[in-house]
Amino acid sequence: MKHAVVLLSGGLDSTTLLFFAKARGFKAHCLIFDYQQRHKKEIRRAVSIARQVQSPFAVVKIALPWRGSALLDKQIPLPKNRSLKRISAHKIPTTYVPARNIIFLSFAVSYAEAIGAGTVFIGANAIDYSGYPDCRPEFYLTYREVLKTGLKSGVEGKAIKIATPLIHKTKAQIIQLGLSLKVPYHLTWSCYQGGKKPCGRCDSCLLREKGFAEIGKKDPSL
Amino acid sequence: MKHAVVLLSGGLDSTTLLFFAKARGFKAHCLIFDYQQRHKKEIRRAVSIARQVQSPFAVVKIALPWRGSALLDKQIPLPKNRSLKRISAHKIPTTYVPARNIIFLSFAVSYAEAIGAGTVFIGANAIDYSGYPDCRPEFYLTYREVLKTGLKSGVEGKAIKIATPLIHKTKAQIIQLGLSLKVPYHLTWSCYQGGKKPCGRCDSCLLREKGFAEIGKKDPSL
Repeated sequence: MKHAVVLLSGGLDSTTLLFFAKARGFKAHCLIFDYQQRHKKEIRRAVSIARQVQSPFAVVKIALPWRGSALLDKQIPLPKNRSLKRISAHKIPTTYVPARNIIFLSFAVSYAEAIGAGTVFIGANAIDYSGYPDCRPEFYLTYREVLKTGLKSGVEGKAIKIATPLIHKTKAQIIQLGLSLKVPYHLTWSCYQGGKKPCGRCDSCLLREKGFAEIGKKDPSL
Repeated sequence: MKHAVVLLSGGLDSTTLLFFAKARGFKAHCLIFDYQQRHKKEIRRAVSIARQVQSPFAVVKIALPWRGSALLDKQIPLPKNRSLKRISAHKIPTTYVPARNIIFLSFAVSYAEAIGAGTVFIGANAIDYSGYPDCRPEFYLTYREVLKTGLKSGVEGKAIKIATPLIHKTKAQIIQLGLSLKVPYHLTWSCYQGGKKPCGRCDSCLLREKGFAEIGKKDPSL
């Protein structure tokens, strides 16, 4: 069986990704991060989802001694009620965490090499997204080269692959893919806040709402 | 004043690097990792050194949920008493930690961007080293491209620089440089073991011994 590491945040994109990897025949090892984000809710959801599909998972705890992002620092207000036009202008917002995906991928490739997995799946998306540089195809093109030069597997000619199957899809297309794979969207959590219900006003809620609206479906998490 | 992040392990190379960065006029912010390595001694030494030169420092704790390296797993024996010829054949040894420098650099560039530092110093060396792929110039060439595509600073045309001033130096040349900068080598710790005295048999001790021998000096840590 082919083994893969799947970066799982418990949100809509990464959960769809997990189901996609499994449907493609991979044994998925989920990697979940507790990086002192504003709330623990998404971590609990990620763990529930990994358990539900009986995937092995690891939770990596990271305490960054610096801040500089609204996702790490509750003193910095989250952007709220931005228009979709403004979100899609892709000016890097205050929720940007410097090098977040770079850090996550670094752990993922370490994990992959330690367990002999040949592929890392990441749910990056550069269409309906918030403008983070490390979600764009340009970044992944360069990161793939690092895996050829900086790891034992790469030096031996078996570089770990980084799979970004959602990168060019709209949120609506991701949801359609997920529905065809029976993704339990009621379990996923996209909101940057950690309340009882999604806030409906942060960029992440607004992009999710747009996706469900475009395909004329109700979001089962609401 | 120019700001830089310096990856400091408390060993001979990274301590020389710290003094080099300071001599070049950088305000050095030291980044130290507690990654559950075999012993805490090098971490305490790194903290002492940062304090001695009055550099701000951050300690990042990482608990990798996987193993696969003699530096993380005391069940895996450390290579001992290898000949210098065998070490310099650069076959990747069991002390290799998958993606270690990739992980360390990822935190370093996050830290650098969060505090507005334009340079990250890393004491990688590809001459008198143990054959780790992420110590070689080929790796740094590819990693530098990631910083142009994956970070806000890079997208804005101000990519963080990765400085590897020791990469082509022999251990003897590094020590000579350090002695000219008054590096307190008695405080540095290179041994993979954490005993009272360096073991004198691991690759790291053997390479250090070779360096001091080549310039006819006594290692003040012995």
